[in-house]
Amino acid sequence: MFTTETQIRVRYAETDQMGVVYHGNYIPYFESSRAEAIRELGYTYSDMEKMGIIMPVVDVHCHYLRPAKYDDLLTVKTILKELPIHHKIEFHHEVYNEANELLVTGKIILYFMEANRMKRTTMPLPILEKLQPYFN
Amino acid sequence: MFTTETQIRVRYAETDQMGVVYHGNYIPYFESSRAEAIRELGYTYSDMEKMGIIMPVVDVHCHYLRPAKYDDLLTVKTILKELPIHHKIEFHHEVYNEANELLVTGKIILYFMEANRMKRTTMPLPILEKLQPYFN
Amino acid sequence: MFTTETQIRVRYAETDQMGVVYHGNYIPYFESSRAEAIRELGYTYSDMEKMGIIMPVVDVHCHYLRPAKYDDLLTVKTILKELPIHHKIEFHHEVYNEANELLVTGKIILYFMEANRMKRTTMPLPILEKLQPYFN
Amino acid sequence: MFTTETQIRVRYAETDQMGVVYHGNYIPYFESSRAEAIRELGYTYSDMEKMGIIMPVVDVHCHYLRPAKYDDLLTVKTILKELPIHHKIEFHHEVYNEANELLVTGKIILYFMEANRMKRTTMPLPILEKLQPYFN
Repeated sequence: MFTTETQIRVRYAETDQMGVVYHGNYIPYFESSRAEAIRELGYTYSDMEKMGIIMPVVDVHCHYLRPAKYDDLLTVKTILKELPIHHKIEFHHEVYNEANELLVTGKIILYFMEANRMKRTTMPLPILEKLQPYFN
Repeated sequence: MFTTETQIRVRYAETDQMGVVYHGNYIPYFESSRAEAIRELGYTYSDMEKMGIIMPVVDVHCHYLRPAKYDDLLTVKTILKELPIHHKIEFHHEVYNEANELLVTGKIILYFMEANRMKRTTMPLPILEKLQPYFN
Repeated sequence: MFTTETQIRVRYAETDQMGVVYHGNYIPYFESSRAEAIRELGYTYSDMEKMGIIMPVVDVHCHYLRPAKYDDLLTVKTILKELPIHHKIEFHHEVYNEANELLVTGKIILYFMEANRMKRTTMPLPILEKLQPYFN
Repeated sequence: MFTTETQIRVRYAETDQMGVVYHGNYIPYFESSRAEAIRELGYTYSDMEKMGIIMPVVDVHCHYLRPAKYDDLLTVKTILKELPIHHKIEFHHEVYNEANELLVTGKIILYFMEANRMKRTTMPLPILEKLQPYFN
């Protein structure tokens, strides 16, 4: 298992008139946290795009337990439970507030695609090799 | 079954550097389409909030089949397959482009809550009565 | 003078915890209204990008008089007071609510740029010719 | 003069199909940076709202010099050149990339308002006292 944590401060722009974070705004939080997860492996998602690989999101599932509020300092966990198989990678996310209450969970499936041919491909080998030690 | 359709024009702000609509931006499209569905019944979500009822989203599931592009005129369907049971209502969404290709599907679960006590409640009766004829 | 009007329904996602439209969200409203203005001339901003011309925004000025609320049906005016000179075009915007109250004004300056060389250019001639009759 | 700096990592959601940060997305960056400026004085904007004071934005001016890219680590400066006079406060913002190039400048005017009466008021005294030493 490979797990990372990112801290995100809730912006006013991200609240809605219910006085909480708008439910759609967790999706950029998840994305931001996945970017930090890749960075921790010594790469960036930009590197991947430069290698000619894009990662479109094909499935999103969010479950909302408690609301986040303006200015909350959230901890967003990114969890990779399995090495990516073929063209598919599945991330799990968990969002906690400062009281360590679980607010939201997410499961995101992305594909590895060759940008120029729009064909499914696999995770670039150098990144896969960085991940392998976490899965023994 | 109760079904409505809304048309939404993709904004530049809603695209990302992959040249398509950012995956998180379908969530406001769904929300916008649900608002039109309620309006078609002769009410607005604002009316509901004035009655003291809010509808937090508790679960979102989106599945992405094809990308939407800048300036596409999307048709967003809102489908209510069952009358809301107790405090829970489940909407299905489908997004089509002008070529009538299915781009994205969504399933959203919301709760009816009393805003001041934050207790679960049920759909306001006058709105439920408007819906009933669609479910015989 | 060339003037167009677009109607925009406020989304829940666009409100903030002050119970009004977040001040930054008028910028996509303006953008959306400019897109409709170009469409009224028989072109789209996408056509322009296909001609190899992009229009980055170089200056934005918004002034806020009254708040817009959730579900308001706004009228967003786009006003072109002068034919674009050289590489520069200046749009004025006005946002009204259903009571015809002026809520927000905006002034946006964009440049015409050749996308591949990133050099300043001028408005494509066929669009300029469509605009000319409004400025006599 | 009171100056603070905040670091903001550009999200994929914040880019558009031009491959750069969408021009409207600097406004939440500025907001985020102002929140950190207040925090540096030992308060939060939430504290202010709890004191019954809200700060609607009344004027925004952004000038764009160079684009920010996905995953850039931006430095957003908040500069207060003068102590707030009466109900009005004016912030200046500057956005730099990692090469220390100036990308965007902003000037934002906000009002201090009593939330329940919607009357103009002044900066709460305890915060004003924290600011005073920077203006001698």
